Amino acid sequence: MALSTQPYKGARDFYPADKRLQKYMFDIMRKVSESFGYEEYDAPIIESLDLYLAKTGEEIVNEQTYTFTDRGGRQVVIRPEMTPTVSRMVAAKRQELAYPLRWYSIPNLWRYERPQRGRLREHWQLNVDIFGVDNLLAEAEVIQVADGILKAAGATHDMYTIHLNSRKLMDFIFREYLALDGVQAHTVAKLIDRMHKMPPAAFAAEVDAVFTPTQRDEGASDKLIDLLQTKSIARLPEVVRQDSSALELQQLLQVLSNARITNVMFDLTVMRGFDYYTGIVFEIFDENPDNNRSMLGGGRYDGLVGLFGVEPVPTVGFGFGDVTLQNFIEGHKLLPPPRPDTDLYVVLIGNVFTEAQKIVADMREAGVNVAIDISGAKPDKQLKTAVKKAIHYVMFVGEKDLRDEQYEIKNLTTGISERHSAARIVSIVKDYRGDE
Amino acid sequence: MALSTQPYKGARDFYPADKRLQKYMFDIMRKVSESFGYEEYDAPIIESLDLYLAKTGEEIVNEQTYTFTDRGGRQVVIRPEMTPTVSRMVAAKRQELAYPLRWYSIPNLWRYERPQRGRLREHWQLNVDIFGVDNLLAEAEVIQVADGILKAAGATHDMYTIHLNSRKLMDFIFREYLALDGVQAHTVAKLIDRMHKMPPAAFAAEVDAVFTPTQRDEGASDKLIDLLQTKSIARLPEVVRQDSSALELQQLLQVLSNARITNVMFDLTVMRGFDYYTGIVFEIFDENPDNNRSMLGGGRYDGLVGLFGVEPVPTVGFGFGDVTLQNFIEGHKLLPPPRPDTDLYVVLIGNVFTEAQKIVADMREAGVNVAIDISGAKPDKQLKTAVKKAIHYVMFVGEKDLRDEQYEIKNLTTGISERHSAARIVSIVKDYRGDE
Repeated sequence: MALSTQPYKGARDFYPADKRLQKYMFDIMRKVSESFGYEEYDAPIIESLDLYLAKTGEEIVNEQTYTFTDRGGRQVVIRPEMTPTVSRMVAAKRQELAYPLRWYSIPNLWRYERPQRGRLREHWQLNVDIFGVDNLLAEAEVIQVADGILKAAGATHDMYTIHLNSRKLMDFIFREYLALDGVQAHTVAKLIDRMHKMPPAAFAAEVDAVFTPTQRDEGASDKLIDLLQTKSIARLPEVVRQDSSALELQQLLQVLSNARITNVMFDLTVMRGFDYYTGIVFEIFDENPDNNRSMLGGGRYDGLVGLFGVEPVPTVGFGFGDVTLQNFIEGHKLLPPPRPDTDLYVVLIGNVFTEAQKIVADMREAGVNVAIDISGAKPDKQLKTAVKKAIHYVMFVGEKDLRDEQYEIKNLTTGISERHSAARIVSIVKDYRGDE
Repeated sequence: MALSTQPYKGARDFYPADKRLQKYMFDIMRKVSESFGYEEYDAPIIESLDLYLAKTGEEIVNEQTYTFTDRGGRQVVIRPEMTPTVSRMVAAKRQELAYPLRWYSIPNLWRYERPQRGRLREHWQLNVDIFGVDNLLAEAEVIQVADGILKAAGATHDMYTIHLNSRKLMDFIFREYLALDGVQAHTVAKLIDRMHKMPPAAFAAEVDAVFTPTQRDEGASDKLIDLLQTKSIARLPEVVRQDSSALELQQLLQVLSNARITNVMFDLTVMRGFDYYTGIVFEIFDENPDNNRSMLGGGRYDGLVGLFGVEPVPTVGFGFGDVTLQNFIEGHKLLPPPRPDTDLYVVLIGNVFTEAQKIVADMREAGVNVAIDISGAKPDKQLKTAVKKAIHYVMFVGEKDLRDEQYEIKNLTTGISERHSAARIVSIVKDYRGDE
């Protein structure tokens, strides 16, 4: 029986055109992150299971990870996220590293879940983290990096909105404003995290079920649901607005405004799934009506590095997936024009490979990507191959051309042919490549 | 109990300096491959187990793969090599693709084996493959790509040697010259593949045990061992030398010589572990006496694409690992100078973040990677951070500097300080970066 040609379910093959788009996105991510002084790191895709039991959300570890036992009996996981790994790496060199430490990575991550739009079993995710800064300029900076990536991809501020919240503020609301106990607060937090995936009535009913009869009589449900609608700090109830966490959010809005980032809103429904966040959290939403969803999220997690037995390090970071960025770029028609990496295809006429090869070697030396047709097929067949590959220029090399040191070069877009020296052809092709 | 900070056994964490070296190698691999017209593809790290049962060597699948059952009951593998995957992808679009098809990828691969020098459980491997060419210009080209990568890394031809052999020639030797049956030929092939890892006497004894008493009486062992020493096609026994596979090897040597690749030798002991090779095979050996081992290998495998129920496609390719390339670069002292991606570190004096940020934003816009110290620490502490990070330039920003629009920039390598406008500082830093 023939083998299947399908990739593993929920994961993608990247044919060259797909890979080019991914590289285009990764190049933007790298360029913007590095412009802010972030340096790239990486780590193995397999980690010990222990690493995730500590602080990643339970649902993820128990139901969504690729967990198995290796041949040496170790319980291991194909990483579902990068944050525990980067915390481990910082902890390992806690004393040697210089803070503020700015790191980024673009790892692939795996989750066992039902494949759907924007969610696949394998995706890549830019992780940007700053370690060692306990003030909100850290939050402001990583948000600027995310904003810079979207702008570099061609986006304008009307295309996306940055939603801010604070875990500390939510804790204050749960404990002080609603007087919930720890278990209730945890359950309500998880409900809020899922609220945009359920009908409002169902959410209200589930919230109601969490409260005690007394709390219900005191209108806790309505208080919470009203609060969650509030999209401005100024409209929060006085007691909530005066908490230090609300003041901090107000300051962050000001710092972002100074940096000309004004497409920002306050949103108490931003919870973030992971248990490790300790302060400000944020998400960026695509404003495309066909894809109105969270594209990326992050926040402050000051406790993770300390789990490795070293002094804790204040940390802020975010993750930005390739699938969500691609959906954004496609949805807003920001795709770069498709274009192969090879600009020149050499068609051989007759038995001229040995001589042609020398000219091609010089062209490569000069920085041109040249594919030479070594199929032995007839010239018109070779030309058809170049057309099928959508290569821009074709150069024909036969015996007479070699004697004259002049070659026909055909622009397959315009259909125009010219004859030039090899050196001139190099200039023409490099000019074209440089114009992109 | 504190969590361990160690990465998974046999795999590596890449701190920024390590990642920079890996990126340096990957950039060379990409640049050279693309200069020959190869285009990058990628695929999921998880594949169905079936994919490897077909043609990968048995030892690898049974003893060395990371195999497990996913939550949906599928038997899957973390890929130990890329060749089955790329064959699957070509087969899936057999009719749509234009041949010669030139593809490359730099996947990470996993093998469960005892970690040792040059062999880790996780490594990255450049895979370069050309599909649709049934003549030896394909072999010559991929060898040129490998040679080009080594040269681009700074190597000269005395540092490495290309060893050529042919599976067809070995088949001829086993069947016609030594009159072995299929089982014997397979066993001897596997022994030759391991021969450089065992003492000569042990190899001779194991070979001897494969032969029948009659074969032994006829001197089959000696014939084989003599043959394996032969390092020139001209010195092969007449009957072997006249086989078409030996003539083909001779032609390949000529084509490579025309391309000025002369550090090539004929070597009957090059077998390659995988079962799928069908013609010429090759390996490149490091000539460093401290690391005299095979760095990369490849060859022709015309049968794999056809296993997916489509018409077969002639294919030639090789794999080149990051660990072996790194050992080569280090052994020959070809390492690039270490250097962070960030060239400018901004030290803030007093409460000037808001104003400084605007200048820094313009610098980033102009293409400079700038890290700004937002720790709130004293200026001398901030300066120490820049020194620890080995950043080349530090810029000091205080209130007076902002009024004067002139800033002190200090070269941390020479210790020299100057005062300049922000625009001039951008030029200085970009000149430095451009000089690399």
